[in-house]
Amino acid sequence: MTAAITGDDLAGALDALRARVPLVHSLTNVVSANFLTNVLLAAGASNAHIDNVHEAAGFARIAGGVLVNLGTPDGGTAAAFTLAAEAAHDAGTPWVLDPVGVGGLPWRSGLAVDLLKYRPTVVRGNASEIIALAGLGGDTRGVDSSDDAAAAVPAAVALLDHAQAVSASGPVDHLVGRAADGSVVGVRIAGGSALLPRVTSTGCSLGGLVAAYLAVAPTPLVGLAAAHAHVAVASEIAEEKSSGPGSFAVEYLDALYSVDAATLAARARIDTIDPANEGGNR
Amino acid sequence: MTAAITGDDLAGALDALRARVPLVHSLTNVVSANFLTNVLLAAGASNAHIDNVHEAAGFARIAGGVLVNLGTPDGGTAAAFTLAAEAAHDAGTPWVLDPVGVGGLPWRSGLAVDLLKYRPTVVRGNASEIIALAGLGGDTRGVDSSDDAAAAVPAAVALLDHAQAVSASGPVDHLVGRAADGSVVGVRIAGGSALLPRVTSTGCSLGGLVAAYLAVAPTPLVGLAAAHAHVAVASEIAEEKSSGPGSFAVEYLDALYSVDAATLAARARIDTIDPANEGGNR
Amino acid sequence: MTAAITGDDLAGALDALRARVPLVHSLTNVVSANFLTNVLLAAGASNAHIDNVHEAAGFARIAGGVLVNLGTPDGGTAAAFTLAAEAAHDAGTPWVLDPVGVGGLPWRSGLAVDLLKYRPTVVRGNASEIIALAGLGGDTRGVDSSDDAAAAVPAAVALLDHAQAVSASGPVDHLVGRAADGSVVGVRIAGGSALLPRVTSTGCSLGGLVAAYLAVAPTPLVGLAAAHAHVAVASEIAEEKSSGPGSFAVEYLDALYSVDAATLAARARIDTIDPANEGGNR
Repeated sequence: MTAAITGDDLAGALDALRARVPLVHSLTNVVSANFLTNVLLAAGASNAHIDNVHEAAGFARIAGGVLVNLGTPDGGTAAAFTLAAEAAHDAGTPWVLDPVGVGGLPWRSGLAVDLLKYRPTVVRGNASEIIALAGLGGDTRGVDSSDDAAAAVPAAVALLDHAQAVSASGPVDHLVGRAADGSVVGVRIAGGSALLPRVTSTGCSLGGLVAAYLAVAPTPLVGLAAAHAHVAVASEIAEEKSSGPGSFAVEYLDALYSVDAATLAARARIDTIDPANEGGNR
Repeated sequence: MTAAITGDDLAGALDALRARVPLVHSLTNVVSANFLTNVLLAAGASNAHIDNVHEAAGFARIAGGVLVNLGTPDGGTAAAFTLAAEAAHDAGTPWVLDPVGVGGLPWRSGLAVDLLKYRPTVVRGNASEIIALAGLGGDTRGVDSSDDAAAAVPAAVALLDHAQAVSASGPVDHLVGRAADGSVVGVRIAGGSALLPRVTSTGCSLGGLVAAYLAVAPTPLVGLAAAHAHVAVASEIAEEKSSGPGSFAVEYLDALYSVDAATLAARARIDTIDPANEGGNR
Repeated sequence: MTAAITGDDLAGALDALRARVPLVHSLTNVVSANFLTNVLLAAGASNAHIDNVHEAAGFARIAGGVLVNLGTPDGGTAAAFTLAAEAAHDAGTPWVLDPVGVGGLPWRSGLAVDLLKYRPTVVRGNASEIIALAGLGGDTRGVDSSDDAAAAVPAAVALLDHAQAVSASGPVDHLVGRAADGSVVGVRIAGGSALLPRVTSTGCSLGGLVAAYLAVAPTPLVGLAAAHAHVAVASEIAEEKSSGPGSFAVEYLDALYSVDAATLAARARIDTIDPANEGGNR
């Protein structure tokens, strides 16, 4: 197979991020709001957390990218999610849907399905969430309780009916999107750290970083892959210097900040996959 | 006196926590939401922060333990507190009430009294809060402005009319519960660090850790004591490596993660007390 | 010119802060709530985050100082802002308005203008926010898109119609207030670190620290200057020990905690300015 994404693609995206410092508009949960902003600032972007109904639509029109994260919705923020997603869609602002907790929690599962109509540029979640959302979307292929991201690939492909690129996070992240000719392509990105799941909001902040990269990358799949690779490489570097989750979180921010394009291209462990041969389709 | 809680009890609870990785359902304040989740992940549990009225009851039924923390209530979350407490009570999920600010703030004091009807498994607070809540609960014994946790013991005993175990945090934590024969028993746990009160949410996150231990411990008092001891030992270890509150918070998370059952049993400074001879009753 | 603020003024304010441990009442955004509280605890104050409509007014009456920060308002907290500001005004509690995002976001810009009627003791913002708020307040002098804090001095002076002291943060912070004879005086404070803008909530937490210093300082301008100088010196110390924004945030809290009055007086780089000769007036 031709490589769907190269190291040069990743390096170019990081250089563009640092050069342009995109402004993300985040509507995220109260657990992740601080850490997500610190991740974006460390990586080279900026962030404004605006989730009230008076300002969400207006800001989504002018931001570089929007993140809608379903982690701690309430009546007010859920209404703001819809306003922001609709405005992003209408204005052409790239936006990311992070369906936190979808599947196990019925109310927010309904919110997530409703948001799909505004065609997120990217859906990013863990394997279970991607599988659940694809099932709720009316397509039951790939519904599975597995946590293995490879098993989520059929569900991720199904979500390409709604989004331009989709990723499932796991020990090895799996990403799918469309090539210029419309065919479905995919990559997997290894790396990361066993300490990542011991620090809250590392997944949510990855969603924010995807929104930042979408503002500067040539295609959604390149932006999505660059965000995943940036996180994977930074967390590998951080683990080498850590003695637990507290020091890991500190070193992770330092590494997001210090990793440069050459290091990203050299250390990223990215492989092209054939989405038709992954997960339930194997 | 026979020891109410032994080092072996603490070690057994920590081993059970690490083996079972209980899922806590937290309804906590916006100041502590991130740190509390990191404390739980570092210690060996997991956490979902769900405080909307649509999902709070359903999740409280299936969680391993629930924390209701009154730190930053508003109209929406206060309604969710009641739904979660009622559901936890009905489903038999152990739950913790942390009455932050009760006494000085009338609105939330009323919320706390209302929540007592759902019979929290544990009430955990600082000495002033425990004394204030006991007073509000219709029993004025022990009402006192002192911050000394020993002075809160009569109030803690009074709250055993509503809860199975109660703790008052202070330089030396004081805990009370009931033995198998129904008699009131208690322990005090020394240790900790002078830097603990210089880091916000260390108390609130202890409440979350109590909810985690309740999911795996043989009795509420053992679970409560294990959480307090885990925090006390980890903060002693952290202080040795810290040069201020910033580095202390980092080292504290690392120590919560790295302390094992043998270390916990060896370093915990736990003594049995006679609750009838503490505080206002001395 | 006579020095508007001396090193001895700064040292005296820090000694008073440590001796009296003022209690701040913060109504701040969800991104900064945790870090702001940690900054106050590290520096030597304490904090209660209370932004519900039931308790905001009552607590503003008894707190040492109040912070109203417009970072993430919603319908409920916006109503609490008004209640707290009115109560602080009526009770004589010093209060700080931090007009986050004012100018670019119409809804909160209206909130900020409404809050001016309760005469904040201090307005603290970045240069663009100060310029925007002065323009919205009916006085268009100094309206300018510049990010240079010196350019915001005419706007800051205009806001002295509403507040007793005003600061604009930037690479060099600019502060204005009134001398005992009613004349407008000002200072600029250099220092800080290029890593400060790479850590979220460093500006918001400065607003909280201003509220703490207002509770103990002899004049609003001295309190405002002491908070800015404490932050500038601590961030210089932190940068020397940091390798990125993660470690900087940790070292910053440690430095806020460890810096003493003598160090503050010796290291603060504070100069008196003539407000009439700054910014658009030069």
